Order: sequence, then C-alpha cells, then structure tokens
Amino acid sequence: MSERVLVQQLKSLPAGPVSVSGWVETVRDQKKVQFVVLRDETGAVQLVNPATRPSEDAGEQDATALALTETIGALANGTFLTVHGELKHDERVKLGGVEIRIGELEIAAAANPETPIAADSGLDKRMDWRFLDLRQRRNNLIFRVQTTLEHAMRTYWVERDYIEIHSPKLMASPSESNAELFEVPYFEDKTAYLAQSPQFFKQMAQVAGFGKIFEIAPAFRADPSFTSRHATEFTSVDAEISWIDSHEDVARMQEELLQTAIQAVKDKHGDEIQELFGVDVQVPSLPFPRIPLAEARDIVAARGYEIPRTDGDLDPEGERQIAAHVGETYGHQFVFITDYHPEIRAFYHMRDPETGLTKSYDLLFNGVEITTGAQREHRVDVLVEQAKEKGLDPEHLDFYLDFFRFGAPPHGGFGMGLARVLMLLLGESSIREVTYLFRGPTRLAP
Amino acid sequence: MSERVLVQQLKSLPAGPVSVSGWVETVRDQKKVQFVVLRDETGAVQLVNPATRPSEDAGEQDATALALTETIGALANGTFLTVHGELKHDERVKLGGVEIRIGELEIAAAANPETPIAADSGLDKRMDWRFLDLRQRRNNLIFRVQTTLEHAMRTYWVERDYIEIHSPKLMASPSESNAELFEVPYFEDKTAYLAQSPQFFKQMAQVAGFGKIFEIAPAFRADPSFTSRHATEFTSVDAEISWIDSHEDVARMQEELLQTAIQAVKDKHGDEIQELFGVDVQVPSLPFPRIPLAEARDIVAARGYEIPRTDGDLDPEGERQIAAHVGETYGHQFVFITDYHPEIRAFYHMRDPETGLTKSYDLLFNGVEITTGAQREHRVDVLVEQAKEKGLDPEHLDFYLDFFRFGAPPHGGFGMGLARVLMLLLGESSIREVTYLFRGPTRLAP
Repeated sequence: MSERVLVQQLKSLPAGPVSVSGWVETVRDQKKVQFVVLRDETGAVQLVNPATRPSEDAGEQDATALALTETIGALANGTFLTVHGELKHDERVKLGGVEIRIGELEIAAAANPETPIAADSGLDKRMDWRFLDLRQRRNNLIFRVQTTLEHAMRTYWVERDYIEIHSPKLMASPSESNAELFEVPYFEDKTAYLAQSPQFFKQMAQVAGFGKIFEIAPAFRADPSFTSRHATEFTSVDAEISWIDSHEDVARMQEELLQTAIQAVKDKHGDEIQELFGVDVQVPSLPFPRIPLAEARDIVAARGYEIPRTDGDLDPEGERQIAAHVGETYGHQFVFITDYHPEIRAFYHMRDPETGLTKSYDLLFNGVEITTGAQREHRVDVLVEQAKEKGLDPEHLDFYLDFFRFGAPPHGGFGMGLARVLMLLLGESSIREVTYLFRGPTRLAP
Repeated sequence: MSERVLVQQLKSLPAGPVSVSGWVETVRDQKKVQFVVLRDETGAVQLVNPATRPSEDAGEQDATALALTETIGALANGTFLTVHGELKHDERVKLGGVEIRIGELEIAAAANPETPIAADSGLDKRMDWRFLDLRQRRNNLIFRVQTTLEHAMRTYWVERDYIEIHSPKLMASPSESNAELFEVPYFEDKTAYLAQSPQFFKQMAQVAGFGKIFEIAPAFRADPSFTSRHATEFTSVDAEISWIDSHEDVARMQEELLQTAIQAVKDKHGDEIQELFGVDVQVPSLPFPRIPLAEARDIVAARGYEIPRTDGDLDPEGERQIAAHVGETYGHQFVFITDYHPEIRAFYHMRDPETGLTKSYDLLFNGVEITTGAQREHRVDVLVEQAKEKGLDPEHLDFYLDFFRFGAPPHGGFGMGLARVLMLLLGESSIREVTYLFRGPTRLAP
C-alpha cells in the first residue's frame, strides 16, 4: 500500500519510477502508441505505451511487450488497475504536464465493457447505476464539499462546547404528527416509528442540562411527493441551545455557522466548484437580512405576484420572489423570514405575548427554504394548551410533555436539510444530484 | 443571552454583579440563611441568601426580601432558573471557592417536587426517566467524552482526505443476512429494510472511486438479546479504504485512529474521568498486539479455560482470557485477533490463497469485541462462489454484485460500535449507561 502515489502528487515528484492506481477513463489505441487516461480520487493522468504489434515476418519479438500491448488494447473503461512505470514531466501533455510510461500493469478487477450509462444519461438512469455515476469528477466533488461543510460545522460547534448526540430513530410514538410516518413492526407485536426529526430528543437534551447540542443524522418522512427537494430519507443537521431570549439567538448562531462553513468550502474547493459547476461560491456577510412574514407578503405582492395559498405562508414562487428582492436590495443569498402565525407552525413553537406570532423563522437560501428555527415553549401548561389548540391529544404526547414537568430552561434550535444546502451551494436543480443514494417513493435501490 | 456567565468561568471573574443560569441541585433552607446549589453544563455553584422571615411583631419588613426568601424556600430540585447576584470569592466555600449572593431570581420552569428517580435508582428506572438521569455529572461527562472521541476521529480522517458519506438506512433488500432484520412497509406495497450496517454502501463508495470514506450513523438489528452489549439501534463507526494489500492496512489505520482519539479524550477529560469514573485513561501504544485465532485458542486453553463453542471462534470468556493474557504479556488493552476461518466470517471477506483463512480481524478492547475488520473480496466471480458456499442466493445479492462488474479496487474496512468503545473506555458495565437513549427489545421510550 505504501508505494502508491496519488495522481495529484505526480507534478511535484521527480522523474523516475512510480506506481499509480485508479480506473480507466479512456483508452486511445493507436497503431504505434497507446494512451490510457487513468483516474483516481485526486485526478487523472495519461499513461503511455509504445505499441508492440505482432510482426508479419518471422523476426523474434519481445513476448512481454506484445502481451502488454494486447492487454492495454483490451482494457474496458472502468477497469481498476495499478501501473508501475516511469514518470516523465512534459509541458506538452495537457493533463497535468506529466505522463507515465507503462512498465507493468496489474488489473485489480476488469470492467464489463458494456457500460450501462453515459455522462449524459438521464437522472433516473444514472441513479440506477449510481456507483458508476459517482465516478464523475463533478459528483466526486459534491461529496468532498459535503465533507468540508460538515466538518466545518462540527468544528464550529465543538470549539464552542456543544455536545454531539445520537438520538434514536426508532420511537414508540410519532415525533411530530401522524402524517408522513413510517411504521416498523417491533418486538412483542408493538409498532415503532421512524423519527421524522430529532425534535423531541434534542429538546430532551436541554432539560437534561446539556446546554448546547448538535446532531447530523438521517430522518425519515413517508412523503409521497416527487419534487426536487423532498426525499423519504434525508440527512438532517440539527442544533439546540439553552438560555436563549428568543429565536434571534438561534438565528445568530445559524448565520455564523453557515458563514464559517461556506468560507471553509470556498477556501478548499472554490476553484474546483467554479470549474465544474460554474458557480462562484459567495461567503455570506453577517447579519443575514430578516423580513417578517407579513412584510414579505407585501413585497411579493408589490412585485406583482399573488400568492395562491390562503394560510398566509409563502409558496415556492413567493420564496423565489423574496429571494430576488433580497438579492437586489441587500446583495444577499440568504434571508430569515420571521414572525409566522401559530396556525402555520408546530404546536411547540413559543409565541410572542405581544403580537401572538411565533418566535420562529424560516431560512431561505437562493429562494429555497433550508431551515425552520424557533424558540420552543418550555412551560408545560402553555405547551398543553397549544397542543390542544392544534387538535392534538396531550395523552399521546405525554412522554414529551414529561420532559417539561421536572424543570426546563428556555431553549430553541433549528433543523436544516443537508442536501438542500449542497444543492443550492452548487447551483444544482435537485437534491437527488447531491444525495449519495437518494430515497423516494419509487426509489429504494441500489 | 449575552449576560449569562457559565459556572466554570466564575473563578476567574472579579467580585461583583453576575448572572448565572442552571438548575437547582439542592436547597438548604436554614432559619437565618438559605443555600442553593445551582448546576449548569459546566459545574455547580453555591448561591446564598440571608433569610428574611416574617416577623411576629408589627414592624415594617422589606416585601421583596420576604418574597425572595419564600421563593427560595419553595424551590424544588430540578427547577431551572436564572440568578442575578453578587459574586464573592471565598476560599472557605468548598464548591469552587466562590459564592453568589442572590439579588434577583427568575424561575424559567419549576420542577414537580416529586422527583421519580434518585442517583441510586436501578438502571431500568433511570432509563424511564433518562432526561433526569442525564443531569448527573457522570452522565453529562459521558457525552462530552463521546463528542471529543468522535471529533478526533473525524478530524483524523478529514486531515487524510477521507470523504464522509451518509448511506441510506432504508434498503430494498437485506444488507447482510435475513436474520435480525427490521421490515418497514413502504410505498406501493413494497417492503423496505432498515440497514443492519452500511457495509454494502461503503463498499459501493470504493467502486465509485471515492478512495477513502467514513460514516458515523445509526444501524439497526432486530436482535432479541438482552446482553450488556447489544441494542436494536446503535451508532456504528465505519471506514473503508481502497488499494490495500490486506486487512493489515485497515488494522494499521484503525489502531492509529484509536490512539489519536483516546489521546484527545485523555487530554481533554482525563482528570474528570479519573474523578467521576475512577478510570485512568490509557493511551494505547502502537502497534497493537496481533494474535492469530488458532494461537489465541491455544493460549486460552493453556490458561485452563475450555471454550464451549464448537465453531472455532472465541466466546466472551475466551475473549476475557485473551485480554488478560495480552495485559500480562504486553501491558496492552487492545488486541487484534486475526486469521478467522471462512465458516465464521461473512461471505464477502477475502481469503488468503495460501492458508484458506480470511484476511480479517476482530479487535478486542479490555476483553470485549468492538470491531470486525477485513479486506473484501472484489473479484465478482470469487464473490459469487463464496456467497453460494454460504447458501446465499446470488440473485438476491444482484444489486450488490453489480458493484463489482464494472471494475473495482482492492479494498477493506471496519465497523465499530461507538457505545462499546465508550463503555470500555469509562469502565462501565453496559452500553445502556453510555447510550443517549437505549433501544432494546422491550425499550422504545422515552
């Protein structure tokens, strides 16, 4: 293992013997010379072999050279192999200014030459063969960006003494509402439910005195929709903090977190994102603009769009209109929409006693909602009232309500869809493109 | 929010006005003076109030002082509150050498005075009221240790260009065997399964050319056992790497990873772990000892223990015996047991052509298995043969076998139970103690 050199290291190595491992991206089998483009997780390099073809006269030939030429000629794209050869620096070689003259070639596993997809195959076809689709540079970059984004977020939290929790995904009762709930037959004829969010359990950490927590984990929604931003399983980025005065404290943490994480992505991958996605990553300035929902509706109306929803919330086009307004007015890609009416919010959102509106926000990124954040109601009598008002039976919520019966701090937090952030950061059109293996109503495999 | 001071900061602050927030741990309501121990996520501090009792003569009294005394006298343990007061440094105060004279007291949420558990309640009772149980210092420390351990592991990987993946937990077919599988009724009368491990999907990342990946995520086993080290849902720490020569490359990465992570825990929490768990955290030296399974059995036999299992594997007592041997011989808490027979390994473990044994290991920590690691078979024809040999129907594995039909690098990895590592690191007797919310056959709540 120790001998292997990564493609990105080649440039800085002296000419001489070298070993690289990767998969075949293309083979150009010319009469006198053969070229192979070999890709690994860090880049691509040109391999070259002066072809030795069987001669028609009876002259003696180098059997090894003949065999190597035949092997290379028969290489299928996608074959994984290791090459030992001679590194040469040559500015004329477009691919990185180096090439490797093949000495020896070891095939790890040959590919079936009938590749089922091409780079321009449709999304659904590519998802059928996701493990091949992911070999594309663009797709590889998506997950390196994801890694950097997440690590920057976790580092932000860890440096500020947040505790990481792993809350259970199997629950005895629904976490929020009965809609969109996956049931799991459990032991002793019981039924378990898959957590739709870690909501209740991250609040539990607050009454447990953890102070500040985060979790990045799967969440499940039996959501029959086929939009570009919904999935039946998604990665949820969650944080919850105690002793806040309002949702503003949550918003301030989240905007700083996002600024830090996007800065890390720009620093590490900015050039590559520009090259492969044509996107110039913008590090958002602080604070993000804030617009109360009522005002947002007025702005949308003034722009000539009439929101068809009657519940007072924005619809997707309304969100795009607000994003356009924010872009024009503040030059910003993010906006917090605040002051939602309780009717369109969860029962546990705290309400402002003066306005009657919830102490909550949605965060839009390039016109798409990526987060709901809120201060939670921690006074159990108020919480019970609000649940009843929503038609919920407090008895079914008893395990949750218990959390607040033995003391609780004021607290709040947010949940954020990781794939949505990635999609918007890279200017992609669907979360399916930025999810390792998407799950939807008709998509359970591979 | 900005005014709040954490208890651990008090020592370094000058005497004067200060605000702290937390929950009531104890109240000592003496005739002339009242003491409250307030705890937050960083420590505990003594609050003091000179009591103002209603006088029996008709003299005028300070109504505010009377009310404050009454409020303090009625405080239930667990009540969350904020106190504004005067910080005083006083070496005679055992609790941190400081105390706060209460000026004003704001109750966030009063606790029900009938606390359902005590520090010495049984495990099951404590799990019923886990949100109260977690307020104990020991329990809080467990999750701070978890945070440090995980962040050190992820940082180790990120610094070495590993990619973080989030593999799906909903699958169309079992990930390894049909045993211990949770079924989930899915859309269109289909059945989904909860992933028992990310095994297949982390291998998929290798054929996708990701090179090196990691994932920390839930895994699910419909395991009816009630031992101290099994759960129906657990956090699995997984890594997988390409272009290895054997399982030794995986073992070398894992031992370095664990050394780095345990060093981070010792640096940050060593003293507190010593105080609260009576454990002196040992940073393991490299390399960890390696013992082939056959030799391990001989050692156990020579120590006078006869392993009742007939399949050739160690049993829990055998593992403890080997751990004792390793401790005595090498002064080490870890040992890799290697060279398992294919009969007791998964079909996808690669076999050594000379010995016929698998290129795999188990890692024991203080006598308990925490990991299985292996090189995987990446040659699809061999893989199909090995599956058949185990009585598996290759057709059911087709989506997995497809991964290897379009090229694959040699690769391997490990899966590690996070709770087991924490349990053994802290000398606890059950993973239930170190899991945020344990899930077992009879435990789905809270």
